[in-house]
Amino acid sequence: MRSTSSAPEGDPAARLLDLLARFSACGATPAGGVTRLCGSPADGAARGLLARELAAAGARVAVDAVGNQFGHFALAERAGAPLVMMGSHLDSQVRSGRLDGTLGVAAALGVGRALMAAKAAGAVFDADFCAVNWTNEEGARFRPSLLGSGTYAGHHDAAFALSRRDDDGVSLGEALAGIGYRGEDAAPAVPACYLELHVEQGSVLEQAGAAIGVVTRCWGALKRDVVFTGEQAHTGPTAMPRRRDALLAGAYLIAEVRAIAERWPGLVHTSVGRVRVAPNSANVVPARVELSLEVRSADDRALAEAGRLADAAVAAAAARARVEAAVASRSERPIRALPAAPCDLVALCAAEAEHRSLRMDTVAGHDALSLLGTCPTGIVFVPSLGGIAHNEAEATDAADLAAGLAVMTRAAHRLCRAGGSPERASRLDRGEPT
Amino acid sequence: MRSTSSAPEGDPAARLLDLLARFSACGATPAGGVTRLCGSPADGAARGLLARELAAAGARVAVDAVGNQFGHFALAERAGAPLVMMGSHLDSQVRSGRLDGTLGVAAALGVGRALMAAKAAGAVFDADFCAVNWTNEEGARFRPSLLGSGTYAGHHDAAFALSRRDDDGVSLGEALAGIGYRGEDAAPAVPACYLELHVEQGSVLEQAGAAIGVVTRCWGALKRDVVFTGEQAHTGPTAMPRRRDALLAGAYLIAEVRAIAERWPGLVHTSVGRVRVAPNSANVVPARVELSLEVRSADDRALAEAGRLADAAVAAAAARARVEAAVASRSERPIRALPAAPCDLVALCAAEAEHRSLRMDTVAGHDALSLLGTCPTGIVFVPSLGGIAHNEAEATDAADLAAGLAVMTRAAHRLCRAGGSPERASRLDRGEPT
Repeated sequence: MRSTSSAPEGDPAARLLDLLARFSACGATPAGGVTRLCGSPADGAARGLLARELAAAGARVAVDAVGNQFGHFALAERAGAPLVMMGSHLDSQVRSGRLDGTLGVAAALGVGRALMAAKAAGAVFDADFCAVNWTNEEGARFRPSLLGSGTYAGHHDAAFALSRRDDDGVSLGEALAGIGYRGEDAAPAVPACYLELHVEQGSVLEQAGAAIGVVTRCWGALKRDVVFTGEQAHTGPTAMPRRRDALLAGAYLIAEVRAIAERWPGLVHTSVGRVRVAPNSANVVPARVELSLEVRSADDRALAEAGRLADAAVAAAAARARVEAAVASRSERPIRALPAAPCDLVALCAAEAEHRSLRMDTVAGHDALSLLGTCPTGIVFVPSLGGIAHNEAEATDAADLAAGLAVMTRAAHRLCRAGGSPERASRLDRGEPT
Repeated sequence: MRSTSSAPEGDPAARLLDLLARFSACGATPAGGVTRLCGSPADGAARGLLARELAAAGARVAVDAVGNQFGHFALAERAGAPLVMMGSHLDSQVRSGRLDGTLGVAAALGVGRALMAAKAAGAVFDADFCAVNWTNEEGARFRPSLLGSGTYAGHHDAAFALSRRDDDGVSLGEALAGIGYRGEDAAPAVPACYLELHVEQGSVLEQAGAAIGVVTRCWGALKRDVVFTGEQAHTGPTAMPRRRDALLAGAYLIAEVRAIAERWPGLVHTSVGRVRVAPNSANVVPARVELSLEVRSADDRALAEAGRLADAAVAAAAARARVEAAVASRSERPIRALPAAPCDLVALCAAEAEHRSLRMDTVAGHDALSLLGTCPTGIVFVPSLGGIAHNEAEATDAADLAAGLAVMTRAAHRLCRAGGSPERASRLDRGEPT
């Protein structure tokens, strides 16, 4: 079977760029990035744009209890048809890039539109398609990250997710209600296959000259929220040996966490990105410091050993500064291989579209990792210029964005023809979805 | 000449405790302390209480352009009479003590009341008395500290002071206007003598078993607001050698600043009490860190050398973390001796009141230091239980509070009889002001 062109209203790549520009107006920053924290008015604006575009493209829009937005495209015309799902997230870090997450959501919308056009032109599908925007992927405002996709996949319950609080004490539930996105719709059943398009956020593709990254493995990540509790005192008269300085403990820990990475060059990444100090006054010895540390690696032994060193560093920093330490939360994401069939399908579609692809790791977490193990799951990368990420200067060449959209559209077309099975999708005759 | 008792309305010490309790209700914290940041509603409430009490005690109340509150007690009944001034500040740190600053203001009010009563009972004075509440002594909300007294003494102009901004971007002028304390009254002329009663905030008096500290010297202090600028990046994929982590530079600096103090045990105090991180998200390499460091010492050479080491540490930390460093502000308060005459007067009054006194240093800055050099200036300490300061657990025995009030009242009585001259005040026959 051979379908006809699916882009009756102009070039899909041009429409993608236009849509990305409209999303980036929601929470735009002066330097060309976005600040679109989960549950903020800017997030509400982006969600509203998505909902209107989904409806205009013929999707039925639903919002679940934790604010995940689903756009269901009825392609198979039968009850209980399997589902092919694509998406990512619209929330961002502070002063971050326009594409991180948004690309995957905008591309999924473009894919849905292309599939509906293909159906209208006579294509016959055996699965429905769903575009999704997951809530609070970033973990910038509410921790943990991957909260919406993690709840969908059953790693958290909705009550836990909704009760997460930002640094001002506002809960996710309150924030979502504030922008009208604490939904009541049922989330769709687990899809037959989930694929996510994302910017790489590293330099591997750029250095290799490849347009498409096929993610075969995710690095493991250990995260800790640590609280040091010392004693509030005057920075002047209080004798140095008497001080119990929570910030000093934090400083010792931050330096040591960096030193851990240096024991495994290239194999272990570590960081402390977040610190809150109380009372945080120039002439008061800090009584309390909260900080978030993480250790990432693709090597099981190195990850475990680096994690042990980080935990030991927490205790050592506390002892050295004469303060108390507590670990308020800890999470461990193991190193995992992504399943072969979606990878093979993506590589096939890249080859069909004549884009060079590369099998590679993801170091960053993505919503797809939440679904890993619940359904065949894949992650597709396009290059990040200069490897810049979580930065307003994040960018991807328009040609690479078009390549990403083309590969996702081909993969979705094959998947929806094949009832959602990536194995069967790869065995189909060549289709011509775009 | 011998004056009669000045406490017709009950025991002055009991009135002081009652007034302190009423001030501590303004911004009270659950653990028994106060949070009364400069220009906050709680500060406004405390200022309102002071204004009512001053007026009730017979003072003419004035508020100058930077919010300093003055209560003028007309004792001498002649134009151009010299002025004796006492006071301190009502603003506090976050979750701080009830007495820090407030004791000096409340005691000055009690002194004014006692002098008016003495006058009513026939005492003849040759100076007026003024109780003062200086704006933003703490530097907790607006930096620099000692802003109101520093402006009064001519170290800053009012426009500079009013334009200082807190971490939310609110200026001192806006904050004062918000609570109705951006005044239009002229500040009084420089007094003939200024004395300030304060809690010690250290353990020297307690360990010596003395009720009264006569401050003869202030430690020097070097302060720096440092900004490290790195590059915002993803904590996952960004290769470690590429990272330019502003928080890592901050951590190196905080640890090194502490190490500097350890080179001169007991002679140099150092600290970093305040850190702001941007964007401050768990999975973003920090782009910008602001921090406030200080170095204090009573030894000129140690202070200078420690200051040089601190400045070198800023540059070294930046280089090690591959970030830029800038010093946004720097202040240097030299080690200074306080003049002998006010010290001698305070020691005389303590002896008259049969309280053991001790000559000692102040490590902390106080508003009196702003006036040092513009008029004879003295600082009087009462003990801090356990040396605890800038902490909700700060406390002083009621007997020591009463001792402080008694000494201040005697000193004011002598000064106002002696036209404000501390030398002449000490040469007067013994008075009996309380």
